Amino acid sequence: MTLDNTSFALPVARTVESLRNVVSRWRQDGESVALVPTMGALHRGHLALVEKARANSDRVVVSIFVNPAQFAAHEDFGDYPRTEREDIEKLKPLGVDLIYGPAASEMYEPDFSTSIVVGGVSEGLCTVTRPHFFGGVALVVAKLLLQCLPDIAIFGEKDYQQLLVIRRMVRDLNIPVEILSGPTEREKDGLAISSRNVYLSGQERARAVEISRTLKEIVVAVERGGDIRSALAAGEARLKKAGFDPVDYLEVCDAVTLEPLTDLTCDARVLGAAHLGQTRLIDNFPISSAGSRRNPDV
Amino acid sequence: MTLDNTSFALPVARTVESLRNVVSRWRQDGESVALVPTMGALHRGHLALVEKARANSDRVVVSIFVNPAQFAAHEDFGDYPRTEREDIEKLKPLGVDLIYGPAASEMYEPDFSTSIVVGGVSEGLCTVTRPHFFGGVALVVAKLLLQCLPDIAIFGEKDYQQLLVIRRMVRDLNIPVEILSGPTEREKDGLAISSRNVYLSGQERARAVEISRTLKEIVVAVERGGDIRSALAAGEARLKKAGFDPVDYLEVCDAVTLEPLTDLTCDARVLGAAHLGQTRLIDNFPISSAGSRRNPDV
Repeated sequence: MTLDNTSFALPVARTVESLRNVVSRWRQDGESVALVPTMGALHRGHLALVEKARANSDRVVVSIFVNPAQFAAHEDFGDYPRTEREDIEKLKPLGVDLIYGPAASEMYEPDFSTSIVVGGVSEGLCTVTRPHFFGGVALVVAKLLLQCLPDIAIFGEKDYQQLLVIRRMVRDLNIPVEILSGPTEREKDGLAISSRNVYLSGQERARAVEISRTLKEIVVAVERGGDIRSALAAGEARLKKAGFDPVDYLEVCDAVTLEPLTDLTCDARVLGAAHLGQTRLIDNFPISSAGSRRNPDV
Repeated sequence: MTLDNTSFALPVARTVESLRNVVSRWRQDGESVALVPTMGALHRGHLALVEKARANSDRVVVSIFVNPAQFAAHEDFGDYPRTEREDIEKLKPLGVDLIYGPAASEMYEPDFSTSIVVGGVSEGLCTVTRPHFFGGVALVVAKLLLQCLPDIAIFGEKDYQQLLVIRRMVRDLNIPVEILSGPTEREKDGLAISSRNVYLSGQERARAVEISRTLKEIVVAVERGGDIRSALAAGEARLKKAGFDPVDYLEVCDAVTLEPLTDLTCDARVLGAAHLGQTRLIDNFPISSAGSRRNPDV
């Protein structure tokens, strides 16, 4: 990271061709390349991923593209925050080498007709209420990876199911990239940082923290050997009492396959999604099976 | 092409890793790479594609993989001719640099769960009777392209709908490769050369030529301004009389979109698929709209 970067404009590629031209020059010089795909509206969570990219690669590309394919007609594609100028200002001091900000017409031709379906880990959880979502994510991530051809690409653990869907797709299609993940960044009270938090009113913001607290409570109960179903039922009641409506899901899943668990037979993840007013919040935490194995009766 | 090659063993890569190791050494030396994907059982049609690859690239990889994902349960996956030793002998004099022959387990993990759906050009024609087919083809071609990352890949025009499906997928997913095609190779009597022709009995082989003759007759009729529907009806009657049963399809389509045509409003393609005994044969020819435009009443 050099402060000098702040005195230069950060270059922005708007086309696949210009992106590939820059990346291939780096390749010719033997440099490694990291891509951090984003939809913009950058916050501390994104910036931590960029720092991880910076630490693991000679060159860092950040893509900013609000992907229409992952929004359903009734969702917030039109309202999704678009703050490219501010995003670029935030990225300047981090030593980013290139912004990739294509128009939708550069990404999707008028007769675009290819889709990618990732089974297994994409089933359940977010797919129940957002059946279009992971298809749209898989498609745009595949395209961004194949446009840029980075050595590594970095995704946040806040979108844990998305992370596993992307890892599965990359493995299954042999996309030549290593997927790294970064931990969820949180506000002081524990709320997972998200671009959608700006939708929350002051009153909603105060209650929003209940989703992370509820998930944490489930982690503690289950790691102590508590019954998973009881912990989830108590968690759902707590969320509803705090005004979350509807609770889309609250589940303890195998950390690798995302199969729902009723017994802690392997490392797991508790995942939740719930609506507070107009805002849908998601969060998740790891659950270690180690303690429960050692002290099954605690 | 050097005869010296025949005195050396042609190297065969069995894993993605070994394929990538060889290709990345070529890349470091600044050499261009062509891939010719095949299912083996190589004939003159394949060899012409290999020669085209050889003429357009520093290095040539031929993949030999009978892809289970493109056969339905009732189809001929088990019986499909597997002749790798003979295939390699045929490739030696052509200056091929590497055979890529992965096992099915190298291509598909036990929990493989990703699929690719190419809409538009994959609709109709072969999809009507083989709904699984282009999904399987798209998947394995995407994987082979991303495993090898060639500059160019070459496919035969005999499988015309397949060629358009692959071009569409490559464009839509931004797979970094140029797709070239090679014209259909034919026996002296006009029968399109196919690995499946070995299934034909002597008597069937004599009648098999009727599919190319029928398609040619439709080309002549339509280019002279004849009615497309009448030409197709006459063609279907001719095929049935020759013993083809069932005729899966016989259509004149837009050469780019594969939309069925009833008037010759653009360059077109006549495509047919029909069964002779146990063997399904396909073939196609271009139809130029130029003559018909100049002499609409001829």
